[in-house]
Amino acid sequence: MTTQHIYTNILIVGGGLIGSSIARACREYGAAGRVVITDKDAVVRASLRSLDICDAVMDTAEPADADLVILAVPPGSIVDTAKALLAQMKPGAILTDVGSVKGDVVQNIAPLLTADIEFIGGHPIAGTEQSGPEAGFASLFTDRWCILTPEDEKSKSAQILKKFWQSLGSRVAFMDAKHHDLVLATTSHLPHLIAYALVGTATDMETVTRGEVVKYSAGGFRDFTRIAASDPVMWRDVFLQNRDAVLDVLGRYIQDLTALKTAVRWGDGETLLKEFTKTRDIRHRIIDAGQDSATPNFGRDAAGDDDGVE
Amino acid sequence: MTTQHIYTNILIVGGGLIGSSIARACREYGAAGRVVITDKDAVVRASLRSLDICDAVMDTAEPADADLVILAVPPGSIVDTAKALLAQMKPGAILTDVGSVKGDVVQNIAPLLTADIEFIGGHPIAGTEQSGPEAGFASLFTDRWCILTPEDEKSKSAQILKKFWQSLGSRVAFMDAKHHDLVLATTSHLPHLIAYALVGTATDMETVTRGEVVKYSAGGFRDFTRIAASDPVMWRDVFLQNRDAVLDVLGRYIQDLTALKTAVRWGDGETLLKEFTKTRDIRHRIIDAGQDSATPNFGRDAAGDDDGVE
Repeated sequence: MTTQHIYTNILIVGGGLIGSSIARACREYGAAGRVVITDKDAVVRASLRSLDICDAVMDTAEPADADLVILAVPPGSIVDTAKALLAQMKPGAILTDVGSVKGDVVQNIAPLLTADIEFIGGHPIAGTEQSGPEAGFASLFTDRWCILTPEDEKSKSAQILKKFWQSLGSRVAFMDAKHHDLVLATTSHLPHLIAYALVGTATDMETVTRGEVVKYSAGGFRDFTRIAASDPVMWRDVFLQNRDAVLDVLGRYIQDLTALKTAVRWGDGETLLKEFTKTRDIRHRIIDAGQDSATPNFGRDAAGDDDGVE
Repeated sequence: MTTQHIYTNILIVGGGLIGSSIARACREYGAAGRVVITDKDAVVRASLRSLDICDAVMDTAEPADADLVILAVPPGSIVDTAKALLAQMKPGAILTDVGSVKGDVVQNIAPLLTADIEFIGGHPIAGTEQSGPEAGFASLFTDRWCILTPEDEKSKSAQILKKFWQSLGSRVAFMDAKHHDLVLATTSHLPHLIAYALVGTATDMETVTRGEVVKYSAGGFRDFTRIAASDPVMWRDVFLQNRDAVLDVLGRYIQDLTALKTAVRWGDGETLLKEFTKTRDIRHRIIDAGQDSATPNFGRDAAGDDDGVE
């Protein structure tokens, strides 16, 4: 074990976008001595082997040697996967995950734990609309936040896991699992539900053709199609696991949208102008916080010939 | 007059993002002999003069020499501006606009026209979340669609205006004004209303701080803040002018969103998976049609150090 490695042996369960990016970042930034990935899908395993981003790709998870086991499977599979692995893990090892909902997972894994294995929930707020091992890249976590939900923020295990994520480029915050779920319902889960609904509405219009929706999408619609192209299985699981928080913010949102609808119906320009003006400030704050690009249209049109035009 | 100029003299009324970009593109692609911009705002005029993107900047509109007058003012000011200029325009000249709603403008300008001046509604589906003359650039219209709503698509005047927009880099489509308004309500106006509402909901949550909304925005929320940062006056006018079409698609949208809400409430994973799967295809079609970037996260994170991080 060389001193700069934060963990000697890491097992990543699930080699998709997030799992494969963790492996790449571990290698790029020297965060681990040895990284093994396991995935139940033979196609994914073959892809991982040809990508050559980790020390070994295993058909089945063998967690006996791992100091850290990272569950990078869809949210709905995390608890079952934990159940299958915990008995084989070595004393003192840490189990963590990367799921977008924390309360449900923390609550259901707790009764499965033995005294010598600790589970620390994790959630890197990073990703793209793409899925699978080819979609990953080492800098995915650079300057993105990773939220950890340990029992005790001051524990050595929590501090080491924090250091691990920082070594991958992340900024790390500790948070209560329930509060995490409400924050993410607001900044991630609701936006995805809204986008999925809009894309559904637009493609089901009988008076506007799909060809027209595609052609004239640059007026705003195209922004929504990016997140509505995200992994359907993962997002199904998120909404099943974070039901209460999502229903809370969704209820508020439908009220706010209905208020704007009323303003449109009554030609109430004053209300519209007031609402549209107050939303501008938050964008500047997000850019100042390094969480988005300052260039117009996210920079995608800046080069003119760099926008995917065939 | 040199033969490659499509119009000898162009007057652009309003030197903001769109007006100033038209001027830049005219110069870049040689679409006009002489381009004059007028703007009622002295700060905008001073900015236009220092940018040096047109042949003259005038305090008041003098349309007597113009072959083409382009109204690039907010939608709510288009009809009044047309009224003020029409009497001074020369016989045979064309009046056009760049507003996001066409039915209202076409209907209200028609009774003001004399026999020797033609109005052709126009709408370039291009823009950014930024406003003002500094925000413009010559390639704004490159590969973006511009919709024209002439009385007669085969008329010489409609064909010349089409050629003009093509010379700025646009693809041009002719469309009935009413149909335009329904298509754009779907692909542009509804997306903006949804985004404004979401940003409002998220910033008004009493259980989640604004700081948290900003920090964890990369999970999806940041995509919405871009279009919710668009010009409030312009968007107020859009919703006042396109009320009926917006209320139609907004009603459908609230129904679809309510159906997803019901699926979340009842833990109906099958419905969620079905809805989330069918929305993926449209993104591929938009990318294939050259209307968005194929790179993940719109390409903004691709370079790692190119995402506005301070």
